Amino acid sequence: MNEKLLEQLHQAKNAARQMMNMSTEIKNQALRNIAETLQKHVLDIIKENQKDIENAKASGMSEAMIDRLLLNEERIISMSQDVLKLIDLSDPVGEIIREIKRPNGLLIRQVRIPIGVFGIIYESRPNVTVDIASLCIKSGNVCILKGGKEAIHSNLFLTRLMQEAIDGILPVECVQLIDYGGREMVDELIHAYGYVDVVVPRGGAGLIQHVVCNATVPVIETGAGNCHLYIDKEANMKKAIDITINAKIQRPSVCNAIETILVHRDIADVYLPLLYQHFQERVEIRGDASVQKIIPCQPVTDKDYATEYDDYIVAVHVVKDVQEAIEHIYQYSTKHSEAIVTENLETACLFLKTVDSACVYHNASTRFSDGGQFGFGAELGISTQKLHARGPLGLLEMTSYQYQIHGQGQVRE
Amino acid sequence: MNEKLLEQLHQAKNAARQMMNMSTEIKNQALRNIAETLQKHVLDIIKENQKDIENAKASGMSEAMIDRLLLNEERIISMSQDVLKLIDLSDPVGEIIREIKRPNGLLIRQVRIPIGVFGIIYESRPNVTVDIASLCIKSGNVCILKGGKEAIHSNLFLTRLMQEAIDGILPVECVQLIDYGGREMVDELIHAYGYVDVVVPRGGAGLIQHVVCNATVPVIETGAGNCHLYIDKEANMKKAIDITINAKIQRPSVCNAIETILVHRDIADVYLPLLYQHFQERVEIRGDASVQKIIPCQPVTDKDYATEYDDYIVAVHVVKDVQEAIEHIYQYSTKHSEAIVTENLETACLFLKTVDSACVYHNASTRFSDGGQFGFGAELGISTQKLHARGPLGLLEMTSYQYQIHGQGQVRE
Repeated sequence: MNEKLLEQLHQAKNAARQMMNMSTEIKNQALRNIAETLQKHVLDIIKENQKDIENAKASGMSEAMIDRLLLNEERIISMSQDVLKLIDLSDPVGEIIREIKRPNGLLIRQVRIPIGVFGIIYESRPNVTVDIASLCIKSGNVCILKGGKEAIHSNLFLTRLMQEAIDGILPVECVQLIDYGGREMVDELIHAYGYVDVVVPRGGAGLIQHVVCNATVPVIETGAGNCHLYIDKEANMKKAIDITINAKIQRPSVCNAIETILVHRDIADVYLPLLYQHFQERVEIRGDASVQKIIPCQPVTDKDYATEYDDYIVAVHVVKDVQEAIEHIYQYSTKHSEAIVTENLETACLFLKTVDSACVYHNASTRFSDGGQFGFGAELGISTQKLHARGPLGLLEMTSYQYQIHGQGQVRE
Repeated sequence: MNEKLLEQLHQAKNAARQMMNMSTEIKNQALRNIAETLQKHVLDIIKENQKDIENAKASGMSEAMIDRLLLNEERIISMSQDVLKLIDLSDPVGEIIREIKRPNGLLIRQVRIPIGVFGIIYESRPNVTVDIASLCIKSGNVCILKGGKEAIHSNLFLTRLMQEAIDGILPVECVQLIDYGGREMVDELIHAYGYVDVVVPRGGAGLIQHVVCNATVPVIETGAGNCHLYIDKEANMKKAIDITINAKIQRPSVCNAIETILVHRDIADVYLPLLYQHFQERVEIRGDASVQKIIPCQPVTDKDYATEYDDYIVAVHVVKDVQEAIEHIYQYSTKHSEAIVTENLETACLFLKTVDSACVYHNASTRFSDGGQFGFGAELGISTQKLHARGPLGLLEMTSYQYQIHGQGQVRE
């Protein structure tokens, strides 16, 4: 293993031991200091960020990507406010989840504890550096961050500022950045079995797939969102259109936006013209043969059904009933978020009970799949796997537990 | 992928969909049928098991291993009684874990659901086939079992009996055995990403390591137990000796038995002679220089400290205080179970809060780390990782969850 990384991992493990029993007050003080430090250094941060922006421009990066990379005063202030918001969230560490008194007198307490060392692999947006570090601090965890090369100056400076801000309060090694090496450091990190307790890839499908297929360290998969909206024959049309617009257009680039609309054939004549009316100038509609008969659109392919556009494109498919909608979702969904619009409670319940995705909605937009919207506060991501945690990963989901057992000399018979 | 396996995996996925919403009554009926079928076929099971026993004898397998492989009437009846016991345990599926009412009127329910398809890789003991299949049925999961070659006749027959028993009640494909191929089938199974939701290796350190290092499917590690007992200077000697004997000798071959005893130097003169008195004829003591000065013993090495003997051997190390004991445990423990014996509550609390193992005990034997002893009923194993579940894996720990959200047309602002 790379010696520099090994040194960092050792320090991370040591920091994790110290963080395990850190009081809420101390962790909150560290967050307060981070927020203040960020606000104090707005201009310095912008200066470092400009180096990344200039490199990005010189390398011919797209405007959209450069915008993701950019830190301005407004964004830095907002970042520091997000850190402050974590102070008000309750600290999950130390919570007694269950208390069991056994007939032999043993008292078994299931106590919530931090997971330990998080390895986070992410791309472009430098605000993630601060978001994740502060979430880890509040939940008593340690993070080793591997950001994208394109944001290296910003990430390095933000990490240094945070370390300065927490110095003397928490072990500074609880926030670390891998600021050397390239893609091979990702591979070292995901093989750091025994040092890293969980690795979370935040990025495109390619990165996630690479990590899942190669990691020896446990992984939490986040973010892949091929989400569906099913408009039932008993849908209320106003709700159907409001939810369609919100779920597709409000912010198409995010993982909880929908990619495919499934429409019951009995209501297609009513719904599709309304859809067309709202989407024609903003969203490219790709429809099956039944859709094409009702509104102008491009033909849809099986590949479309499997695609997370994250863009102003939507696939539309007419189905004969809720069961066919469920089957389509079973085949193509990434198990992130799906919604049904119907006034029939029985149909809604069938959909919710049968669709095996992290978040399933009745008469609401999939855009609510978000830690903040769920009331969890900030989030590390949206888990699309079934192990450990599903859906929004808030502070609670960033913990593990331990059984602490109190006896009076009991032995097993 | 092996075509036969791919076919089984497809069937498993389909069965998992059907199992998701299976009622407790139906699952219990299936368990009752399995128990009855096993009892009815005691002689047939013994006959099939004898084929494995004869092959084992011919191959020169050790007596101890042959005993692990053996099924006799008593063991089969006990196996069927274990299946019946699951009926009385409460069904975790469908439990509403949290209910959140948001200011915008959204009702968010976190509902417990089965995980889906379990891949289980295990060795020798054929009763595991029935134990795991019945745990999976009760928790609404599907299992694909890959048992050891040495038990193939027993495993195959037991699987057929169970499938016959549940036919017409549950999808028979919810219990499947891979009865073809060798070690390469293990590799296919742990790469069945998208089909298998979690793989659980039950066996020696070599098997676990192989699965952890190679699986693309999420893994739950179980069983590695290098457990420690720390005798503090303020220990009650009767409790210390009772717990020592129980934790080491009651059943040395299991993962929750201790391997190393750490003794506070101030009490070594009192404790060690008592230890020697009880262990001299039954357990080989390997001690450090301080131990050797007090009682006759073999010298201990660093390698001993890192070894899970699972045998009548114990390493003994004298430490200067509880902190040194904690450091030793930090260095060598597999994070399964550790215990402290002390009458000082402050020392006990420090130990429990600082030792990061799945189960930490104050004045009790580590042998209680067991689903049954915790009151969870049967268990799939003892998890030594921090993600998803730690310690005994009961029915609850064999589940995931889903957010079911009820709205009245809400969209995100």
